[in-house]
Amino acid sequence: MVYPKKFDWEKLQSFCSKIFVKAGVSKENADIVAESLIMADLRGVDSHGVVRTAIYLERIEKKMIDPLAVPEIESQDFATALLNGNNNLGAVVGTKAVEIALEKAKDRGAAIVGVKGSNHFGTGAYYALKAMEKNMILLVMSNASQTMPPTGGKRPFIGTNPLAVGVPAGKETPFLLDMATSVVARGKIIVAAQKGIEIPIGWAIDKKGRSTTDPEEALEGAVLPLGGPKGYAISMFIDILSGVLTGAGFGKYVYNMYENWEQPQNVGHLFIALDIERFMPIEVFKNRMDCYIKELKAEPKSEGVDEILIPGELEFRKVEERKQHGIELPKKVVSELDQIGKRYSINLLDAVICEIEEREEMNEC
Amino acid sequence: MVYPKKFDWEKLQSFCSKIFVKAGVSKENADIVAESLIMADLRGVDSHGVVRTAIYLERIEKKMIDPLAVPEIESQDFATALLNGNNNLGAVVGTKAVEIALEKAKDRGAAIVGVKGSNHFGTGAYYALKAMEKNMILLVMSNASQTMPPTGGKRPFIGTNPLAVGVPAGKETPFLLDMATSVVARGKIIVAAQKGIEIPIGWAIDKKGRSTTDPEEALEGAVLPLGGPKGYAISMFIDILSGVLTGAGFGKYVYNMYENWEQPQNVGHLFIALDIERFMPIEVFKNRMDCYIKELKAEPKSEGVDEILIPGELEFRKVEERKQHGIELPKKVVSELDQIGKRYSINLLDAVICEIEEREEMNEC
Repeated sequence: MVYPKKFDWEKLQSFCSKIFVKAGVSKENADIVAESLIMADLRGVDSHGVVRTAIYLERIEKKMIDPLAVPEIESQDFATALLNGNNNLGAVVGTKAVEIALEKAKDRGAAIVGVKGSNHFGTGAYYALKAMEKNMILLVMSNASQTMPPTGGKRPFIGTNPLAVGVPAGKETPFLLDMATSVVARGKIIVAAQKGIEIPIGWAIDKKGRSTTDPEEALEGAVLPLGGPKGYAISMFIDILSGVLTGAGFGKYVYNMYENWEQPQNVGHLFIALDIERFMPIEVFKNRMDCYIKELKAEPKSEGVDEILIPGELEFRKVEERKQHGIELPKKVVSELDQIGKRYSINLLDAVICEIEEREEMNEC
Repeated sequence: MVYPKKFDWEKLQSFCSKIFVKAGVSKENADIVAESLIMADLRGVDSHGVVRTAIYLERIEKKMIDPLAVPEIESQDFATALLNGNNNLGAVVGTKAVEIALEKAKDRGAAIVGVKGSNHFGTGAYYALKAMEKNMILLVMSNASQTMPPTGGKRPFIGTNPLAVGVPAGKETPFLLDMATSVVARGKIIVAAQKGIEIPIGWAIDKKGRSTTDPEEALEGAVLPLGGPKGYAISMFIDILSGVLTGAGFGKYVYNMYENWEQPQNVGHLFIALDIERFMPIEVFKNRMDCYIKELKAEPKSEGVDEILIPGELEFRKVEERKQHGIELPKKVVSELDQIGKRYSINLLDAVICEIEEREEMNEC
């Protein structure tokens, strides 16, 4: 078989959605999950894109995720809500929580919505973008299964608990931070191991808790929080707000999506929504953001630097590029999606972009 | 003159308060500012303690701070408020904002209060502790004058914009994060320069934006955000929420407390308050926090590590120690406070601890 490389984002999203429907997810929810995955691929965050389709399906098939569950508000007040995801897909639960948060913030100015009983929810940026469309600011936090040691520890205890914040701007590219609280993705250490090159001091520890530059030793040890004790503290407060406070798992009680097949993940999230217009008219705010971003980007650059970037700027450019030219997927992912498609009788090749110059080697088109 | 070293925290607080009253601050507000400074010294955060008395006074004397101003709520809704500090002292304005945030969060579950027209507000921990006493969680952010370059830049543009979060626990020491968003305090680079030793790669850049291990070159350049682009992004979102959103200064429009004598600082803050009981009964929450902290502290330790610490734990121990044995101040600070005392006819020596074994060398006692 010749593996096609490039996919049309809308058709690939439609493919994913159809697969999830076949797996027992409602059309509405399947669209949400597919959109969240494709959004990650469009932004160039391939680690959180369609590569996750297989694991989500496997957890549905093995009853580790309940796609029929209805998320329920367990308690609420004017500016708060606690949502129990009842173990539906993370993107479905997260989207419901954000809807509640944005609605309350529109009514009351601000809202905090905690979530328990959820699963891996994709990228935080997906939720932050929903708020930005409505001229709101959203802080997104989630805990995750154990990956990083506390400062002074030698084995994973906290997750790489992500933090995302989106802020709309006017004419400038808006601000969109979406980061894990680790120094670096574990994937980069895997790549170093494959290439046989050293990793910088500070990325990881070996299994005895010693700093290491050997990627093989690092993979047996643990990746470290960004910025040492400060990153450890940030990651811990995200775990507290997402997990301890909501009734979700925390620390070792957030179960690994790939390794634990005994019970649901019980991931927790926290969303803080703020209506900008409670502070100033939106046009004034957007002008101030534009001024801030313009001044920042005009700063003198270090030697060898072409451009000063705003958090999220590269990803917004990637979206434009990939919407126009397609999403390129590695062979392994194409093969996996193709097999899933065959299992559920949905043709992956319908999503392929057949550009003239590539037609020759894509005999399935 | 022989300089006494150790001071009784309550007497030192009283000394500071009296000084501020003499400088034109109301008794109530003078007590707040003095408490915030002494709290920092008690916690071992000497950089934000009574060492700041002189600059606060100088800014009052030179009309850069208005100690008679009344902070005003410019707009509010159920879960939000925008407070204009009208250029009163930062601790006074911050305390007022936190009172509003906690009151609203008690009523509505959560609240976000933005602040403009403020000044250097001391440590974020001071405000987080007020919330913890009331079984609430407070996120504290403030912007600050320019210290760090954006990633790729070579001169200061953003401040070391601090973030603090406090979370109460039951029997265990509570969680209290309070950090600047820089890799390291500039003070550590000054110490390295004095000792003539190299600083690690990653702490700072020289004035051309190149990474440097030379502390002298670093001091002419800029300290870097923690964790590279991630710290830059965190610092930037704090500036956006504290400054752009509130109408305060941001970027270069937050003026340096020590260098700018033309205009008020116009610092901005943002406080997010959350009432834990909206999510679960406080005792259940505190038990969950205790469980989390106990499990974390029991993790296996890296070689050479005596104890795994929770953010804020060392500082809580320091408070106990200094309340019992006194606050030790460097000669330079004692001399400065002594001169201030003489100028305002308040005797600093009233705050000295005269322990028997030290009496001989403290002839002023």
